[in-house]
Amino acid sequence: MIEGIALDAYGTLYDVYSVERKCEEAYPGSGVNISRLWRQKQLEYSWLRTLMDRYETFWHVTEDALRYTLAELGLAANEGKIEALMASYLELEMYPEVVEALKRFGRRKKAILTNGNLEMIEPLVRRTELDRHLDACLSADETGSFKTRPDVYQLAVDRLGIAKERMLFVSSNGWDVAGAKAFGFTVGWINRRGLPPEELGVRADYTVSNLLELAERVVDA
Amino acid sequence: MIEGIALDAYGTLYDVYSVERKCEEAYPGSGVNISRLWRQKQLEYSWLRTLMDRYETFWHVTEDALRYTLAELGLAANEGKIEALMASYLELEMYPEVVEALKRFGRRKKAILTNGNLEMIEPLVRRTELDRHLDACLSADETGSFKTRPDVYQLAVDRLGIAKERMLFVSSNGWDVAGAKAFGFTVGWINRRGLPPEELGVRADYTVSNLLELAERVVDA
Repeated sequence: MIEGIALDAYGTLYDVYSVERKCEEAYPGSGVNISRLWRQKQLEYSWLRTLMDRYETFWHVTEDALRYTLAELGLAANEGKIEALMASYLELEMYPEVVEALKRFGRRKKAILTNGNLEMIEPLVRRTELDRHLDACLSADETGSFKTRPDVYQLAVDRLGIAKERMLFVSSNGWDVAGAKAFGFTVGWINRRGLPPEELGVRADYTVSNLLELAERVVDA
Repeated sequence: MIEGIALDAYGTLYDVYSVERKCEEAYPGSGVNISRLWRQKQLEYSWLRTLMDRYETFWHVTEDALRYTLAELGLAANEGKIEALMASYLELEMYPEVVEALKRFGRRKKAILTNGNLEMIEPLVRRTELDRHLDACLSADETGSFKTRPDVYQLAVDRLGIAKERMLFVSSNGWDVAGAKAFGFTVGWINRRGLPPEELGVRADYTVSNLLELAERVVDA
């Protein structure tokens, strides 16, 4: 039986590709390319810095990834534009079904478990009023490492006080799904982009196309 | 003074994109897309498995990455084709300046330091007769982890018996350059594709366009 839900934030609750419009405004004709490469480098840098034992916050890593992206695409790294694009991470769009899905999980404990440091995730959670529906907002920042390190997933166990076997971890990111499953969570994959599962030796327990569908399957199970 | 040289293999001595032709033969029209995504997923899986404490050999990871790539691109995962494409990793093309550059380094000790397990790197080294010019072939496999973990770079120090400050590490991969520099090596970046440096908080000591240029700069320094 599932007693607690830990949810990834970026890509799962909030649409990281919603920055594309702001990228397009700042650099006409390059919005799609910027947002895709930016996201890819953000993740690469989080993995590489953890492996290198050179942790910096996710905000820092996200800005580094943006600077690299602009350089690779041959675009001028205007400081005003960088500030505006970074600010878009505080105003990401929330997926439409999130609140209804969280309600559907009922009185089970619910927490965000994100790579984002609290300074960047909390303003977003407040702005979208998601704090009303959550018991906690947990950041990998506390561990000085990023997913897929097991100590990040352990945070949810320790802070919610629920054994990992009775926790449902939810992510739209295939690599995060693999990390959480390897850790020992029951895992739901919100496969928003219709991708094949990552070949990392483990599989999600549930694969669905949105969060409400997952809530219905888990609650009715 | 530089007393020893440790060289990355894939991308640095051997052209990983030389598999593109075989990908194109197996899947006409998709050669470029397969070879790019395959390389990206190969690296991602090496990083993620290390973070997850779920090490498998680089050969295993490379095949997993190929299977994912074919699935994402909607191509049939024919077992014969997979075997043929995997075999291409044993027949990668060596960059043309490699032997002359290694000679230019003179009597300094030289070793490959690669993510590849010995079963996949040694046949390639023998086939290209590079073993004549090397003192050792060291694999991350010994550590049960992949770059950019510091213990992988430490292998070269331990096995060549040369302090890291007196070692030159050489890679064409920006992320590997960053890992080696963070570890404490003197680092030469063979920037074969004219990319900007990775934004990981460290920079190469030398940036050159091929290995011979690096050898000349280091030997003449």
